[in-house]
Amino acid sequence: MEFHFSERMLTLKPSVIREILKSVTPDMIAFAAGNPSTDTFPIDEMGEIANGLFADKGRIAGILQYGVSEGYQPLRQLCFDRMRGKYQTGGEQDELIITSGGQQAIDLMSKAMLDPGDTVIVEGPSFIGSLNTFRTYQAHLAAVPMQSDGMDLDALEHSLKTEKNVKFIYIISTFQNPSGYTTSLEKRRAILELARKYDVLILEDSPYFELRYEGEYVPNLKSLDTEGRVLFAGSYSKILSAGIRLGYAIGHRDLIAKLVIGKQATDVHTNLFFQVVAAEYMSRYDLDAHIEKARGIYREKRDLMLRCLEEKLPQDVTFSRPQGGLFVWMELPAGSDGKALAALTVEQKVSIVPGNCFMVDDEKVNPGVRLNYSMPSKEQIERGTDILAACIRKYLGR
Amino acid sequence: MEFHFSERMLTLKPSVIREILKSVTPDMIAFAAGNPSTDTFPIDEMGEIANGLFADKGRIAGILQYGVSEGYQPLRQLCFDRMRGKYQTGGEQDELIITSGGQQAIDLMSKAMLDPGDTVIVEGPSFIGSLNTFRTYQAHLAAVPMQSDGMDLDALEHSLKTEKNVKFIYIISTFQNPSGYTTSLEKRRAILELARKYDVLILEDSPYFELRYEGEYVPNLKSLDTEGRVLFAGSYSKILSAGIRLGYAIGHRDLIAKLVIGKQATDVHTNLFFQVVAAEYMSRYDLDAHIEKARGIYREKRDLMLRCLEEKLPQDVTFSRPQGGLFVWMELPAGSDGKALAALTVEQKVSIVPGNCFMVDDEKVNPGVRLNYSMPSKEQIERGTDILAACIRKYLGR
Repeated sequence: MEFHFSERMLTLKPSVIREILKSVTPDMIAFAAGNPSTDTFPIDEMGEIANGLFADKGRIAGILQYGVSEGYQPLRQLCFDRMRGKYQTGGEQDELIITSGGQQAIDLMSKAMLDPGDTVIVEGPSFIGSLNTFRTYQAHLAAVPMQSDGMDLDALEHSLKTEKNVKFIYIISTFQNPSGYTTSLEKRRAILELARKYDVLILEDSPYFELRYEGEYVPNLKSLDTEGRVLFAGSYSKILSAGIRLGYAIGHRDLIAKLVIGKQATDVHTNLFFQVVAAEYMSRYDLDAHIEKARGIYREKRDLMLRCLEEKLPQDVTFSRPQGGLFVWMELPAGSDGKALAALTVEQKVSIVPGNCFMVDDEKVNPGVRLNYSMPSKEQIERGTDILAACIRKYLGR
Repeated sequence: MEFHFSERMLTLKPSVIREILKSVTPDMIAFAAGNPSTDTFPIDEMGEIANGLFADKGRIAGILQYGVSEGYQPLRQLCFDRMRGKYQTGGEQDELIITSGGQQAIDLMSKAMLDPGDTVIVEGPSFIGSLNTFRTYQAHLAAVPMQSDGMDLDALEHSLKTEKNVKFIYIISTFQNPSGYTTSLEKRRAILELARKYDVLILEDSPYFELRYEGEYVPNLKSLDTEGRVLFAGSYSKILSAGIRLGYAIGHRDLIAKLVIGKQATDVHTNLFFQVVAAEYMSRYDLDAHIEKARGIYREKRDLMLRCLEEKLPQDVTFSRPQGGLFVWMELPAGSDGKALAALTVEQKVSIVPGNCFMVDDEKVNPGVRLNYSMPSKEQIERGTDILAACIRKYLGR
């Protein structure tokens, strides 16, 4: 049987990371993952809520029935109130849609905006999952080099000037995946101004912004947006559970209306049970206190990871020092190949993601590597960085 | 703020049914829904499983973590074994992917196969949700008139001969939505033969086939398929719960591989918790016995609905007599407008879906109406059909 697949499928490859993760065995140290630590999930509280829901016969029947595509109204309200109240994220003209994970917000925005050949400007490096989503809409991807305080503004303006049919700028504004970098407030303002000047939208993907371990909160781009030019994509994956697939998007009501239509045509609505669980959790427990606890767990792991890298890596191997999130970006000396290093570490049962995966041109040799510290245990971080350092020395011939 | 939406969004309208359902108030009799009856959900058993999962600290942590895009392996296995063992659906070359409801299988198949302008041949009438999904891929839709034993074969061959770039035939083979018709075995064989002759695929959407209340099981098209030409889309919405968004697709491994890549780019994976719940349910309880019980509940409702229509409707108003599923298709005398009737009934607090909604050309006046009998109570069926009959007489001026 020979299949004549759509154009969009011809160039698309399975996510390298998800393929790497499939080969991860329990005895492997997974620096390659992007998973939150299960220690941060409020399991007891979610269990209590779930039990209570199933015990309420009248209520559970409705929860196991079809819901509306916009999402469970109480959760929409709680989530939006919190984002507006605590972070001034979302204005009068905005609405909120519940999505099946943050990834679906990226997909629905793409569905609403992108025709084949349209340009999406992305950070280089950027999250491979989103790059692949844009590719399924046959978008042209234009990468703007990432600096430690966000995109290179001159390169961004150059792209906005020269690329054709730019629909939006895709930016992971805080604790970026994979670099760990946070775009500065100054650059956020400048990026919004450039978006206005060239009349393009901004897709702000921000699944990690509440996982800050030090430094001051930098306002979301969306909270600087008075026109409805920014769609903010948020996620419950890193604060409640990743497996329940729960996220949301905040944007101009006209845009959200299109996302709702798109969602009707993909999965109708998000799992209703866990929308109710999340709403009950937010009503009955202190989400902020829970996030504070998760921050404590991650802060220790980040500190340990950074200390290990500091102590063990050769001087000419650099790495980012993220103030939050899940990732460290490490760079081997210029000309090195992260892929070759990954091949060495995986033999020693340490998985890492080579930097080329996060690039628009993923065939080009890249000296970067993404390291995750949220998933491995402290003991694994210690042992894994020993192995990583040894593999680096071997790779560099020292 | 003015948005420049993608081409696909310009012609797309919100699902009429979902809009109708949003306006449904608790005091309304909903013949418009497509919802299963909550009486058929195994709530106690699912609750017991859920409680058990949350009580198992080691296990629940993994279940709330990210999963793989293909789906939870034990559920894939159980589901596939059952479909192969009980229904001979799925062969050696086939694999199974878990989807976020049956609708997502339709979406992922479209993503894998359709370029703008490609043709999908559909039954006329057909399920509005799927038609809208095909529209989001800018497919050209060619409708083949539906007869009580399936598509008009001459019209189907004419379409296959004359339409350009036909990628697949979309068929709801058993207890079709909205007509309630089942395609006969003879026609299934002929449709598969035509698909072979013109080298197109078949997307067999079959969320209702196990809800048979009388007559003999007609083999799924997929079980007649030796080449891997058919993708079978199944659903747990009508046998376990609709709100959990759980479905599956069975097809040739090369095709499923593309669906997996597509899924990575949309929602990464389906809610893992309820994949585990479904797998546990199938291991620990008797799904067949549960379905038999649901059949009993629905059979009574269908019998009542048909008896009411028989007794109350004018002679020249016809309706289908489905052997299963959730829907009856009613037709007013030629030249009538189902939309006008729906406007009358909704005033009297009975919602119905006018037939034009299910047509490729939904602007054209259509004398049909879809009636659902699974959601309303027996008392509501009695009362609702009184109101329906009165509105029909009023509409026809009698």
